[in-house]
Amino acid sequence: MINKTHQPDAKSWVDVPEGSDFPIQNLPYGIFSTNDHPQKRVGVAIGHQILDLEKAAKHLSIADKSVFSSEVLNDFMALGKEVHQSVRTELFDLLSEGNTTIDASYLVNQSDATLYIPIQIGDYTDFYSSEEHATNVGIMFRGKDNALMPNWKHIPVGYHGRASSIVVSGTDLHRPKGQKMPPNADAPVYGPSSRMDIELEMAFVVGKSTALGDTVEAEEAEDYIFGMMLFNDWSARDIQKWEYVPLGPFLGKNFGSTVSPWVVTMEALAPFRVAGPEQSPTPLPYLQTTGPRAFDIQLEVSLQPEGLAPQVICNSNFKYLYWSMSQQLAHQTVNGCNLNVGDMCASGTISGPTKDSFGSLLELTWNGTEPITLSDGSQRTFLEDNDTIIMKGWCEKDGLRIGFGEATGKILPSKK
Amino acid sequence: MINKTHQPDAKSWVDVPEGSDFPIQNLPYGIFSTNDHPQKRVGVAIGHQILDLEKAAKHLSIADKSVFSSEVLNDFMALGKEVHQSVRTELFDLLSEGNTTIDASYLVNQSDATLYIPIQIGDYTDFYSSEEHATNVGIMFRGKDNALMPNWKHIPVGYHGRASSIVVSGTDLHRPKGQKMPPNADAPVYGPSSRMDIELEMAFVVGKSTALGDTVEAEEAEDYIFGMMLFNDWSARDIQKWEYVPLGPFLGKNFGSTVSPWVVTMEALAPFRVAGPEQSPTPLPYLQTTGPRAFDIQLEVSLQPEGLAPQVICNSNFKYLYWSMSQQLAHQTVNGCNLNVGDMCASGTISGPTKDSFGSLLELTWNGTEPITLSDGSQRTFLEDNDTIIMKGWCEKDGLRIGFGEATGKILPSKK
Repeated sequence: MINKTHQPDAKSWVDVPEGSDFPIQNLPYGIFSTNDHPQKRVGVAIGHQILDLEKAAKHLSIADKSVFSSEVLNDFMALGKEVHQSVRTELFDLLSEGNTTIDASYLVNQSDATLYIPIQIGDYTDFYSSEEHATNVGIMFRGKDNALMPNWKHIPVGYHGRASSIVVSGTDLHRPKGQKMPPNADAPVYGPSSRMDIELEMAFVVGKSTALGDTVEAEEAEDYIFGMMLFNDWSARDIQKWEYVPLGPFLGKNFGSTVSPWVVTMEALAPFRVAGPEQSPTPLPYLQTTGPRAFDIQLEVSLQPEGLAPQVICNSNFKYLYWSMSQQLAHQTVNGCNLNVGDMCASGTISGPTKDSFGSLLELTWNGTEPITLSDGSQRTFLEDNDTIIMKGWCEKDGLRIGFGEATGKILPSKK
Repeated sequence: MINKTHQPDAKSWVDVPEGSDFPIQNLPYGIFSTNDHPQKRVGVAIGHQILDLEKAAKHLSIADKSVFSSEVLNDFMALGKEVHQSVRTELFDLLSEGNTTIDASYLVNQSDATLYIPIQIGDYTDFYSSEEHATNVGIMFRGKDNALMPNWKHIPVGYHGRASSIVVSGTDLHRPKGQKMPPNADAPVYGPSSRMDIELEMAFVVGKSTALGDTVEAEEAEDYIFGMMLFNDWSARDIQKWEYVPLGPFLGKNFGSTVSPWVVTMEALAPFRVAGPEQSPTPLPYLQTTGPRAFDIQLEVSLQPEGLAPQVICNSNFKYLYWSMSQQLAHQTVNGCNLNVGDMCASGTISGPTKDSFGSLLELTWNGTEPITLSDGSQRTFLEDNDTIIMKGWCEKDGLRIGFGEATGKILPSKK
């Protein structure tokens, strides 16, 4: 799938600063509006600009141009891979150095635009696919000998989460309140979470539906994936710990999750495909695939306390995940569960092998026993009010760099 | 809230047979189409008929009549309790004996109509609110001394389920395939579930949205509930058992859930309000309510093997539930999780105190050790291919009877 849209030396007539997440080889989709045209519509990020696809649609061969005037990407996603591929090639040409079909009047400064959650999300699944994360959490809660559950190496473990509270980067969230059981207490208490955590994840968006009863073969699963985003699965550990037995996380998670505004397509990610970790024991046949199914996506988390500069607290990589997106999707549908365009599946916390690559404060501070020291000398175990978390992700190889932008959010004090 | 629409002796000019689920005091909403008018639209069940609200809308004072031409009830639900109450009163008048404003030309035979899932479901939550069910399952899996988890009497335990695979009564489902760990095996195997079960539940539908960060007081929670339906939470116990630790049920549940086609409104249910079980220990203040919050709804489950008559296997009652819908909804939002119109919340299996009131085969056959004997002498532990399950529900008091219709589904053999 390496074609001209992946050439590292390709340039756009739009200015793309060195190190930008959005060179001409990326072309991620989002939903934006502007003050002078407040209707939400589809755009593509290029450098510091957005190409307005509602306006540019007349230069594209796509039959149904109304998909670019939609408030969500779902209608465009539903058109299928062939259309996505041809739109990508045409956008690449329109934006290529020397092409004069369109000009700067088709562009909007990202700083002049409001970005929205780009997907009408149907069902949202959260997987648990990092062996390092599952092991770390297991050691903390059950000890070294029972760290991984018996099913973990056989099943891409996952559960359903809350779609309504998934918000776009830049949306601040109030610290959740709820029930928690203090250590050594006789009865639970009600109050704000005192163990506010993050989970560094990525999510993929389903771009092709299935009928109830149908299954998706692991080998074909990528046909059903439109693209990827950064995902912060905010977690209130005290609420989660008290509630999660036996039916899983609920209020410890569903007060909010943050996604980045741009959906990077699988076509753009193609050059960064790598092999994932070796899997032993060999998964059951319905989970087997050929060829590399992981992606080399560098991930970075920064914590920014009020009034201080952001400080990097984690560097990880999407390629560390034990279970691939193909396996996750094959598993999700093996029982006939149907997919809709706009369904979202998150990876689970993406922790790497070293301590500085752990994707949650729970792991980074080892359950609060090893605090992080900040630039002003203060310490963090879990998040304080008005702390901001900034997640970034990018791929880099042979002079080609494409990025995901940011998934950023601030934890405001609890509402009265 | 007892008003003229609840008078037991009120009669309609539409024929309503003795014992019908749909007398003039019920007026449940659904979505239907007919051969000669295949567009989905809103109707109200009355006797064996459906009042076509698209057609009757001109006789109602509601401002936006287009809500009755919608393919789902969401737009109507979003109009609020005052509108629902006034439409109910006007429909009651239009259908009352002696009223000649409309006639039989506004009616469609239910047998001539196709019924659809009446809600565009947003997020779906499944609670676990029957003490008897939680205790039974706990005894089977953890023994008598640890039957109820420590959180159970403090929290209306719940988890998020799959909205995409909720289907309307009459939709047959294929037996799901998946991973399961046979007893004493070294490794999991792949294949059709051999422990196909049911869960007798009811669901309520959210009719009023909240903003992210807001909470709903338990005392006010019923303002956010539009109505109720029967709900069969089909469960593949072998798949569920292997997968559910530590993040809860996933593929053991999400291959399909069946709802009844008619939404019975909270206004119709008002005469059947009763006190629920006494709660000890006293719940935290955010879960406290005044006045009776349970509803006396009789529930019945029948199993119909291919070629045999249906056989009742369970009689239960919604009033057995330990946690009320008000408490469930207050808990769901205590952390600021937002509600959308169309969200659905199921009760969890509704088991009563006696063995014939258990709401799942797991309990009725005590984990398969005490099979049910059928009319032809054959036995059931879990469901066989082509078994049909029929769930019914109704309220009865002082000569007034309103019902929910049926939630029916057949388990077809696994797909190849």
